[in-house]
Amino acid sequence: MLRSTTSQPAPPTFAPVVVIGAGYAGLSAALTLHDHGVPALVLEGADRVGGRIWSHRTPGGALIDHGGQWVGPNQHMLLALADRFGCATFPTWDTGEHLEAWRDGAVRRYRGDGPDYAPGAAGYQEATARVDAMAREVDLSDPGSGPMAGDWDSETVHSYFLRTVACPAARVRLHLAVQGVLAMEPREVSVLHLVFYVASAGGFAQLMETSGAAQEARFTAGAQAPARAIAEHLGDSVRLNTQVTAVDQRPDVVEVHTGAGVVRTSRVVVATPPPATAAICFLPALPNARARWIQRSVMGDVAKVHVVYPRPFWRAAGLSGVASLYDESTFGVVFDNSPPNADQGILVAFSYGDRLRRWFSLGQEERQADVLRTLTRLFGPEAGEPVDYLEKIWPDDPWARGGYAANPGPGSWVAHGRAGWREPCGRIHWAGAETASRWNGYMDGAISSGERAAHEVLRAFAERESGSG
Amino acid sequence: MLRSTTSQPAPPTFAPVVVIGAGYAGLSAALTLHDHGVPALVLEGADRVGGRIWSHRTPGGALIDHGGQWVGPNQHMLLALADRFGCATFPTWDTGEHLEAWRDGAVRRYRGDGPDYAPGAAGYQEATARVDAMAREVDLSDPGSGPMAGDWDSETVHSYFLRTVACPAARVRLHLAVQGVLAMEPREVSVLHLVFYVASAGGFAQLMETSGAAQEARFTAGAQAPARAIAEHLGDSVRLNTQVTAVDQRPDVVEVHTGAGVVRTSRVVVATPPPATAAICFLPALPNARARWIQRSVMGDVAKVHVVYPRPFWRAAGLSGVASLYDESTFGVVFDNSPPNADQGILVAFSYGDRLRRWFSLGQEERQADVLRTLTRLFGPEAGEPVDYLEKIWPDDPWARGGYAANPGPGSWVAHGRAGWREPCGRIHWAGAETASRWNGYMDGAISSGERAAHEVLRAFAERESGSG
Repeated sequence: MLRSTTSQPAPPTFAPVVVIGAGYAGLSAALTLHDHGVPALVLEGADRVGGRIWSHRTPGGALIDHGGQWVGPNQHMLLALADRFGCATFPTWDTGEHLEAWRDGAVRRYRGDGPDYAPGAAGYQEATARVDAMAREVDLSDPGSGPMAGDWDSETVHSYFLRTVACPAARVRLHLAVQGVLAMEPREVSVLHLVFYVASAGGFAQLMETSGAAQEARFTAGAQAPARAIAEHLGDSVRLNTQVTAVDQRPDVVEVHTGAGVVRTSRVVVATPPPATAAICFLPALPNARARWIQRSVMGDVAKVHVVYPRPFWRAAGLSGVASLYDESTFGVVFDNSPPNADQGILVAFSYGDRLRRWFSLGQEERQADVLRTLTRLFGPEAGEPVDYLEKIWPDDPWARGGYAANPGPGSWVAHGRAGWREPCGRIHWAGAETASRWNGYMDGAISSGERAAHEVLRAFAERESGSG
Repeated sequence: MLRSTTSQPAPPTFAPVVVIGAGYAGLSAALTLHDHGVPALVLEGADRVGGRIWSHRTPGGALIDHGGQWVGPNQHMLLALADRFGCATFPTWDTGEHLEAWRDGAVRRYRGDGPDYAPGAAGYQEATARVDAMAREVDLSDPGSGPMAGDWDSETVHSYFLRTVACPAARVRLHLAVQGVLAMEPREVSVLHLVFYVASAGGFAQLMETSGAAQEARFTAGAQAPARAIAEHLGDSVRLNTQVTAVDQRPDVVEVHTGAGVVRTSRVVVATPPPATAAICFLPALPNARARWIQRSVMGDVAKVHVVYPRPFWRAAGLSGVASLYDESTFGVVFDNSPPNADQGILVAFSYGDRLRRWFSLGQEERQADVLRTLTRLFGPEAGEPVDYLEKIWPDDPWARGGYAANPGPGSWVAHGRAGWREPCGRIHWAGAETASRWNGYMDGAISSGERAAHEVLRAFAERESGSG
């Protein structure tokens, strides 16, 4: 229903399985089915695969990732896929001293995972250790269960840190950590969801750190490269520019409606972000718990800005290019996103939540000036002279409608989690990073969710064959 | 896109204004425009007008309201509309002693607005007085502003009452009050939203009480009667069974897409509940704040069950038929919904939030048995012998997708309220009970929202005529 500039060829009229969405979840589902000899038709609304992962070559020839970009050593699903399709990685640039800016105007230099001497560092360590301990109590297959789930899902992360963390500077650190991890404000999510998210990644440090953790490495050919390789492997069973408008479960068949025709199928895997799923008309209506879960899953707000320089000039000053902004800046963190050979210098700045809303309220020129002002304050006057400047504001993306992922609002896990999170609805199966137990919200979680959904379909087919289903 | 059993005649190809949705908001918008000589085409997906208001005659001949039913003396928009179309009202039945059931198994009788001697009554009064005082600080035209808004929007109502109300019995009372008022759990909404909602109604007592408040009277011909009268007045400009799938703002015209054809128009008033709005494809995409507001507005969960008896037998025992269930019952409150002449006895039981989810998990027979068990415990064995039993589970309604209304999750007001709540987006104007400053979430608020949106359109037309727009 989006205005289309490309002519949309009609999809085939039948496919054994239809997968909706060609992000990592959908591609992984289709690949798993393909590996088991079941051809799946992948319908993607956008004109590319990858979803919230989008590698882009700048006019100046640099390769950047507008969306998800990192891979960590514990993200085995993503690493296996990268291995299979020969997609190399390289270590995230982080040699040198990091920076952190505070509200008093100070910019401090430090080495390692955080300045232990710095304001709030001790309180931050205590609080994250408590969250880690809570995370060990979470059942990743049913996060809304457990004796504390009701209490934890009834309080916002904001209230919780206000109540349990005495040091204001520690709370400022925790605020940025939550923004950075979820791209949402601590007032928008419950303690239970944060604790689940931490559990899902294997601990707070896994989410936050670079070496040995989620930010350890990047893909030489961009994080979209494995997605493109899967799509090439699957050939013309991946249809771009094909938006699904309705999924109609009839007694013996499911009809998948697109702008260019109807596909009849046995099983559907829906692998779209929750707001895109909400725009699909399901017939009959989805069961209550699933409908509520989709409705209460709200996308984070994140923007990535890449600023390209002739060289990574900050290295000569002994700086890593990594910075955390605990002041009122519209950006929260900065990383060195230079290419593997460092033939250009690239900084990437992240904005989220309230910061993003302040920044977004500026015009395009003011936005750029604001970013360069922040980078100049951190890295000196050379930061004000880029050769390229690229914004990706994910809430404006017509397909993802936000980023990194959707997070259920307070109370959603206990009310709707068990039946609504990912339980199949008839012949409809659910994939997507939001449905993953491990690395929820990450590429790795998207891939495992696609495999899980594909195996649900294969099991259903096997049961039908054996006459038990 | 819903499966249709009726043939859908093509709508006209042009209308000066298109109104989407024929609930009270949409009908009020169209009526206001009509009164000012501007014909508006109303497109309604369902096969009836009224939206979340639906009057229904039972097989036995009794008239019941599946949805909103009451009118209070301060609901001047609704009362004016009822006057205009000659829709009479009658006082809500509440003579006699009320009941309240507690977890200890006791069922207490009391008179008036509440048993002052009863457990938790004092703490409840103190807490609601505090909420009333906070409500006086809310700017109804911009609830996310004000010095306390950030704090109030960062804490759930659950956390707030746990922190500020020492008496557990008072908290039990407050829990049921919030369920009854919002059809949501206290953990699902922020303090700011509750305080706004209270301010919007003119105080906690306005929301809770019968005489002099929101539950004062019912409509003799059902609460849908004024809606039907407006629709009749507007004639064939109200099109039923016509679902809008997309709204495409072109430079000089807006195209409204339906399953049966495209209507070109100058202005659109969207008067659908937020989840239905989320299913419409807007081109270009809605501005960030509005998209986020719609996405973060989540419908409450409410079911109404009407149980019909040959006569209102409870009156002989001195009972009003009103009961509050502070125990673990799947229903929260019961009212006497007998017709004006009381030639039958009708009890209506409300379930919401967690209670509704527990009840909904039962099969249909168990659900009925559960209701009758509760009513028998309250009103004696005669309550177990009904002549009719009717359920309306609003989360299952394909158009409303919940009830009473949508409420923004924690943090939504301060992050997105100003620009996202009801600010027009180009030629699109927003109506609906959720967009009202006064009686937000009520029929009265729906009506005022429709008038407000219609006046926005009229002002835009006047500006264009005078060459200033």
